[in-house]
Amino acid sequence: MSHGYEKGRLDLPFVGHCTFGKRPIVTDWDAIDADVAVLGIPYDMGTQYRSGARFGPRAIREASTLFSFGHGGAYDHEDDATYLPLDQVRIVDAGDADIVHTDTVRSHANAELAVRKILAAGALPVVLGGDHAINIPCIRAFSEHGPIHILQIDAHLDFVDVRHGVTEGHGNPMRRAAEQAHVTGLTQIGIRNVSSTAREGYEDARSRGSTILSVRQVRKAGRDAVLATIPAGARVYVTIDIDGFDPSIAPGTGTPSHGGFLYYEVMEILQALAASHAVVGIDLVEVAPAYDPSGITGFLAAQVLLNFLGYIFEAKRKAGA
Amino acid sequence: MSHGYEKGRLDLPFVGHCTFGKRPIVTDWDAIDADVAVLGIPYDMGTQYRSGARFGPRAIREASTLFSFGHGGAYDHEDDATYLPLDQVRIVDAGDADIVHTDTVRSHANAELAVRKILAAGALPVVLGGDHAINIPCIRAFSEHGPIHILQIDAHLDFVDVRHGVTEGHGNPMRRAAEQAHVTGLTQIGIRNVSSTAREGYEDARSRGSTILSVRQVRKAGRDAVLATIPAGARVYVTIDIDGFDPSIAPGTGTPSHGGFLYYEVMEILQALAASHAVVGIDLVEVAPAYDPSGITGFLAAQVLLNFLGYIFEAKRKAGA
Amino acid sequence: MSHGYEKGRLDLPFVGHCTFGKRPIVTDWDAIDADVAVLGIPYDMGTQYRSGARFGPRAIREASTLFSFGHGGAYDHEDDATYLPLDQVRIVDAGDADIVHTDTVRSHANAELAVRKILAAGALPVVLGGDHAINIPCIRAFSEHGPIHILQIDAHLDFVDVRHGVTEGHGNPMRRAAEQAHVTGLTQIGIRNVSSTAREGYEDARSRGSTILSVRQVRKAGRDAVLATIPAGARVYVTIDIDGFDPSIAPGTGTPSHGGFLYYEVMEILQALAASHAVVGIDLVEVAPAYDPSGITGFLAAQVLLNFLGYIFEAKRKAGA
Amino acid sequence: MSHGYEKGRLDLPFVGHCTFGKRPIVTDWDAIDADVAVLGIPYDMGTQYRSGARFGPRAIREASTLFSFGHGGAYDHEDDATYLPLDQVRIVDAGDADIVHTDTVRSHANAELAVRKILAAGALPVVLGGDHAINIPCIRAFSEHGPIHILQIDAHLDFVDVRHGVTEGHGNPMRRAAEQAHVTGLTQIGIRNVSSTAREGYEDARSRGSTILSVRQVRKAGRDAVLATIPAGARVYVTIDIDGFDPSIAPGTGTPSHGGFLYYEVMEILQALAASHAVVGIDLVEVAPAYDPSGITGFLAAQVLLNFLGYIFEAKRKAGA
Amino acid sequence: MSHGYEKGRLDLPFVGHCTFGKRPIVTDWDAIDADVAVLGIPYDMGTQYRSGARFGPRAIREASTLFSFGHGGAYDHEDDATYLPLDQVRIVDAGDADIVHTDTVRSHANAELAVRKILAAGALPVVLGGDHAINIPCIRAFSEHGPIHILQIDAHLDFVDVRHGVTEGHGNPMRRAAEQAHVTGLTQIGIRNVSSTAREGYEDARSRGSTILSVRQVRKAGRDAVLATIPAGARVYVTIDIDGFDPSIAPGTGTPSHGGFLYYEVMEILQALAASHAVVGIDLVEVAPAYDPSGITGFLAAQVLLNFLGYIFEAKRKAGA
Amino acid sequence: MSHGYEKGRLDLPFVGHCTFGKRPIVTDWDAIDADVAVLGIPYDMGTQYRSGARFGPRAIREASTLFSFGHGGAYDHEDDATYLPLDQVRIVDAGDADIVHTDTVRSHANAELAVRKILAAGALPVVLGGDHAINIPCIRAFSEHGPIHILQIDAHLDFVDVRHGVTEGHGNPMRRAAEQAHVTGLTQIGIRNVSSTAREGYEDARSRGSTILSVRQVRKAGRDAVLATIPAGARVYVTIDIDGFDPSIAPGTGTPSHGGFLYYEVMEILQALAASHAVVGIDLVEVAPAYDPSGITGFLAAQVLLNFLGYIFEAKRKAGA
Repeated sequence: MSHGYEKGRLDLPFVGHCTFGKRPIVTDWDAIDADVAVLGIPYDMGTQYRSGARFGPRAIREASTLFSFGHGGAYDHEDDATYLPLDQVRIVDAGDADIVHTDTVRSHANAELAVRKILAAGALPVVLGGDHAINIPCIRAFSEHGPIHILQIDAHLDFVDVRHGVTEGHGNPMRRAAEQAHVTGLTQIGIRNVSSTAREGYEDARSRGSTILSVRQVRKAGRDAVLATIPAGARVYVTIDIDGFDPSIAPGTGTPSHGGFLYYEVMEILQALAASHAVVGIDLVEVAPAYDPSGITGFLAAQVLLNFLGYIFEAKRKAGA
Repeated sequence: MSHGYEKGRLDLPFVGHCTFGKRPIVTDWDAIDADVAVLGIPYDMGTQYRSGARFGPRAIREASTLFSFGHGGAYDHEDDATYLPLDQVRIVDAGDADIVHTDTVRSHANAELAVRKILAAGALPVVLGGDHAINIPCIRAFSEHGPIHILQIDAHLDFVDVRHGVTEGHGNPMRRAAEQAHVTGLTQIGIRNVSSTAREGYEDARSRGSTILSVRQVRKAGRDAVLATIPAGARVYVTIDIDGFDPSIAPGTGTPSHGGFLYYEVMEILQALAASHAVVGIDLVEVAPAYDPSGITGFLAAQVLLNFLGYIFEAKRKAGA
Repeated sequence: MSHGYEKGRLDLPFVGHCTFGKRPIVTDWDAIDADVAVLGIPYDMGTQYRSGARFGPRAIREASTLFSFGHGGAYDHEDDATYLPLDQVRIVDAGDADIVHTDTVRSHANAELAVRKILAAGALPVVLGGDHAINIPCIRAFSEHGPIHILQIDAHLDFVDVRHGVTEGHGNPMRRAAEQAHVTGLTQIGIRNVSSTAREGYEDARSRGSTILSVRQVRKAGRDAVLATIPAGARVYVTIDIDGFDPSIAPGTGTPSHGGFLYYEVMEILQALAASHAVVGIDLVEVAPAYDPSGITGFLAAQVLLNFLGYIFEAKRKAGA
Repeated sequence: MSHGYEKGRLDLPFVGHCTFGKRPIVTDWDAIDADVAVLGIPYDMGTQYRSGARFGPRAIREASTLFSFGHGGAYDHEDDATYLPLDQVRIVDAGDADIVHTDTVRSHANAELAVRKILAAGALPVVLGGDHAINIPCIRAFSEHGPIHILQIDAHLDFVDVRHGVTEGHGNPMRRAAEQAHVTGLTQIGIRNVSSTAREGYEDARSRGSTILSVRQVRKAGRDAVLATIPAGARVYVTIDIDGFDPSIAPGTGTPSHGGFLYYEVMEILQALAASHAVVGIDLVEVAPAYDPSGITGFLAAQVLLNFLGYIFEAKRKAGA
Repeated sequence: MSHGYEKGRLDLPFVGHCTFGKRPIVTDWDAIDADVAVLGIPYDMGTQYRSGARFGPRAIREASTLFSFGHGGAYDHEDDATYLPLDQVRIVDAGDADIVHTDTVRSHANAELAVRKILAAGALPVVLGGDHAINIPCIRAFSEHGPIHILQIDAHLDFVDVRHGVTEGHGNPMRRAAEQAHVTGLTQIGIRNVSSTAREGYEDARSRGSTILSVRQVRKAGRDAVLATIPAGARVYVTIDIDGFDPSIAPGTGTPSHGGFLYYEVMEILQALAASHAVVGIDLVEVAPAYDPSGITGFLAAQVLLNFLGYIFEAKRKAGA
Repeated sequence: MSHGYEKGRLDLPFVGHCTFGKRPIVTDWDAIDADVAVLGIPYDMGTQYRSGARFGPRAIREASTLFSFGHGGAYDHEDDATYLPLDQVRIVDAGDADIVHTDTVRSHANAELAVRKILAAGALPVVLGGDHAINIPCIRAFSEHGPIHILQIDAHLDFVDVRHGVTEGHGNPMRRAAEQAHVTGLTQIGIRNVSSTAREGYEDARSRGSTILSVRQVRKAGRDAVLATIPAGARVYVTIDIDGFDPSIAPGTGTPSHGGFLYYEVMEILQALAASHAVVGIDLVEVAPAYDPSGITGFLAAQVLLNFLGYIFEAKRKAGA
């Protein structure tokens, strides 16, 4: 049979080690030879409310095994496409950046090093947080791989400059990104309700050219209007805070905010983006499994990432890349 | 007063044994004299990821007590109807099929026997799973009670023929059903994302005349288009995998899949179906309560079943049956 | 800096005692000098299914700390407004009414006394339940502060007159309210599915002039049609049963009912109400945290109340009040 | 084979309705013809902290199914005895007393009536709480079936006379019992730490002839010294508050208290008691399953009751009764 | 009546704000006038495994309300003593030290300041962690209030000097303490199993005069032998890591270790210590409530602290202090 | 420094992939070159009550990371030994046996093959269940590596021959083992309470030379008496059902039974066994993490296995092996 299920193991989802998508482990970052390298950054010292996102990478890896039992890739009948065929899209699990408790600076330096290694290997970095502070070293690692436009999907603007001396907490990453020379713009969607960013943070973001859209504004404007805020030809880094989604599907997170995105709203934007722009980096942050006994937050994260990767490489395939 | 609440017990939902809808127990299947017989099949050896659906029948029975304290039936103000009046719709709880651990064949045989007894008694079988594999003996039991058209509500196509020798797991039931002489067609809705059914399973299903619609396709096409795929006059068996619903309302299941149906989307199809066709059997599967501490999955299952039964018998009453 | 974050403490959400919105405690009710006084009524002996709403006030207070770290008020970019500036809207946490186990009459008397004290102080009472029975003493406390129109957001009509002698359980409050001379009308929205209110309860409600709308009826009619059921110039008391919301966002409650309101559906009604009418009292009931390990029900309650208060005082400010 | 497992159903623990020990239901209390009748009293309005014991009866019934799959009785190799042979000890599940929300007096009256019916039928009443207040109607029901000595196993003395008018809460039952003419004495063991009973409650209890022993005092004195406090020939009613056990094995309760009894400490007292005295009534209270996701509290309750019943009837058998 | 329950409120445990023991809040640390001041340090960036101890203070405060309803103090029948009479032992809740996310140095400085204020006020500091790193600023704060001997109850030695630059994580506090001039010795009990302290850490500790005893060694040696390791006349600071207790009673912690102390083993040491030495400071750390849905870890912490305080002040009273 | 922590990564417990003890993965079973090979058998179709042990291997692996951060082995101060030094005891994680849903025969065959491969490689097999049925293929795999004596630690005798045709469920393994020519005897400890093994099962076991001891019998007899039931010179296979331990420390299991072993009771037997006999195989079964939100059952399993392995290789080292 063509799918080859009878050859080798059945390998049901609950069987075997938890690597991302059950793909091979490569923790020697100098030996990465792949299209995608998945890296965990299990850091949660930047959070301002519930900690626990340090177990995000493990939760997402475990959840991803549910979606990895198509031996010949994942067939999607809506799109009539087989995503991520094993022989065409080489994904490796690069393990985790080394975290040093009590020490944000050193932890972020370790994380930045890991992302730089992945970029040097020519693979697409897919980073599993950790809290949103881990976006800071990720963006820094692109200093020689820019320019990039950032698409942020999040409940919170995360545009605090400095407060009580804190510059690298989970309320600061977009401000830090905006300061980088290789970051040419930001599109921030899903932003809603009160958060640590005060009015002057919004003004600061807007003055730096950021586009800020709430969930309802995205719904009213439509997918294409969102994409229109990203310059044609821009290379896009996508940062997904799981709390950009509604708490009904993402309860396992540190700072939930009601009124978030539903599943297809985000996926349709990501699918269109994959077709229209080059996606050069991805992080997905703030999954805190201790607050989600049913595990649906982890499943959401895994499903979003696997499908988004599918869209990206299917678009590349169609483009003949 | 007409409702009679002061006579006898108040019988609040949390009081008393957990039978389905607090209706009487009849475990002597040769003695069933009822319009509806509810049967549990607490089997979960067919699942490919999280087990635990063996406690589905108990969870649904417990949850159903919340909706059973209307002594004179359940008044619905939207429909201005009183559903399931105790004196007009006789529902009995037939207990569970006998499950034999490690032994799928024997367990399924026991389940098939039970459903045959209910059909022989002239009652509508309403089966509480268990994982979706339990649909296989249910459909077989209709061999002398066909022909039937199957309406499946599910995230997964469940159309695997055989893999590593497995033919009666929870990925196989629709393929097994399609093989039965007394099954004349399938309408499969809610199907989305990757699952154990590979591309050839879809092709197989379509070649056998199955209609396959995703959640988004159902939303776009509308309720009536779904019903139009069921031949006029067909006798319909409805199989509801709780993961056809969105994880936000059905987290307690073995293989959650984001992007599922919301409550009214399904109920409006079921209500229209009850008015347009004869419903001859129902199963609801894959409720795994260990993964849902808040219990909303069980409440969903109970609410769906009690309302669907209400629609069916109200339609019969209106039709003068 | 204008926000003043560097002065004094950072005071992150997880730091410090749990008072509502981290506002000051005033348990000497004769000393209340505030615009808003938040009172807990941790009573749950009126429930007909799952108990536990007695911990509602503590859960909501804890959750509210997440939304209270804007030192200068809460900036909402969608509305371009800063809600609840600390120096303009004085909110105090008045602690809890004294509950006497086994004794509903005495507990309700204590609760009524507390609300009367708040009204006497000229503050807006915001009451945290407790089960919905606690609405009964709240409404009674308005006897000298009427007339009022009640807007109820709920899955259940709660219009039972008396059953087995019970007149002050959580199925009775709207019936009790309708009997009060100072209650001039009711608008009851979100009502759906079977509950303890039988058909005659609906007839009774309608005969007393109540408007009853299901979730789907509200969706079809639209926000303005809902508001149109409230007479112009009416002073409005809003009672929010958290089960009026969908179980996907409010699983932690005693009697969940699928098919409920989503977040913005309710918030847009409340925002419009704040602009069109005087809101003179609020209660939010039936949060039972033991059934919600992720805590999203408490976050919903806190978010609804803080935003609603923001709408009310922003409307007052605009009106020059 | 002698055990007869192949005849009829395998009937694994997870299969079938949840009745106590999977024994038959008899809810027509005038028709009880049994050695033991198990009654639930799902009342929790008497608790002073965490509610939820109203689901105690359901949790204990569910848990008891784990210990009920010996078709020919339960063989205990330590005692080399087969306990509760189905053909010799007739146990029935009498369902629940009718509870009226908000109304303790009426609920207790209903409970007392149920226990009186069981006593009139000549069966041993085994009552599943509910909070400890339900002991009050149970003891009252013995007014024509005394005299009785009470053995209480509990963390708390429960000897409050009246406070804020409350006389029938879960802090009052032993004081109420001591007032009854047919109660000749109390042995109260496991009592420890602070509770609602103040110093004068202890003095009151002692002045009425009660023996009060802490966990450590029982350990030091030994089993026989405990039994020596019960007069020879006394007919004994045993009331077991699950919080008499250590929180490590009974976390699912309203008012946990560390330093409690371990399993065999209690069982050895109960086994000796069964051999030395006539046990005429039993209640087990305060199981609150919402606070115990692992379910071990329910298993403890079921195991204690089934073994205790085994001891009682084995002792009767040996005594030739 | 002497207890005064009828005067004022009944004030059941579940009613009212969560302050430690329901005692008054004094967050102006210059205004503390009390025998005991309870301070939270909700810091968890020092942990090497599961985070979440930042919610320890809130969990312990909530749990302590269960043990605070004796209006006239807590009567203990085993000791025939009334502990912590409100009019004799003045306890205040001083709120939390200000925590700065990402910044251990600044957080610890804030914590040290708070403890210094309490010491300056002449109150006994009782500190609620947070992870064990918070012991570092606590001990530093005693620089002018020494000398002190430290009694540590813990599964782990916490004697790491420096690793990857980390000197103030939760594996370092005892090493840091041993360096302080005002710390004259350590008694470390409960230490067991593997942890972050390697062999050289043990050697280092012993060379600095520390006494290290495992749970089994304490059991064998007995309580008095433990106390004998503390010099007569020493002023003792007690640091209790909740994981010193067995996971059966303290599951809600970051790094559980089986084989720990049971309740009375610790309490009897603390009671004897209170009688033999002056206790000048206490901290209790590592309660992580997200990992304990039943809440027994918080109850343990509250029970340990309230009883320990009772022992201390009863000993002072007896000594005529 | 000798421990080498500053070289390379800090590698905190929560960082990195979940392999057993963070040891390397070798899933090519023909390439195993190690002292110990850890294999998961995630099979749970043999259970008679709560399923979920299929996630035992993942839970134990995750928990084992907590105990694996000693870079130079695990120092135990009680024994003054460094266990499992990385350079002396080579442990590999061999992944999982391939499980085929619905098919016990094929799953067991796959498991047997895996254990045979490990034995062929000369490594000590350490197997993570799955339910206790997985012991059946494990013992079979020793057919060429006998004779063996089995030490079982368990609440249940598991000595059912056949019932309803079932011979390879979790109630059958010891009966199956006793039939094997290469199994020379059994020592079964911890056995207590009712289970699926009826009286004739006990008689059967005894007639085949098995020693059966309850928890209390082991406590009374002492460790040495237990070891004396194992013939001198016997090669011992140890099978540990986690429910042999008390539910207080092992709540996450399918069929909990109160009154089980505490931690040191078992560890001291295992340590003595390691010194007195050759241990040739180990399995640890029935960890079902879905029933243990605090995770202490997984920590227990990991701690037991890592310490037991430490004892074994330390004994070998001392013996000069």
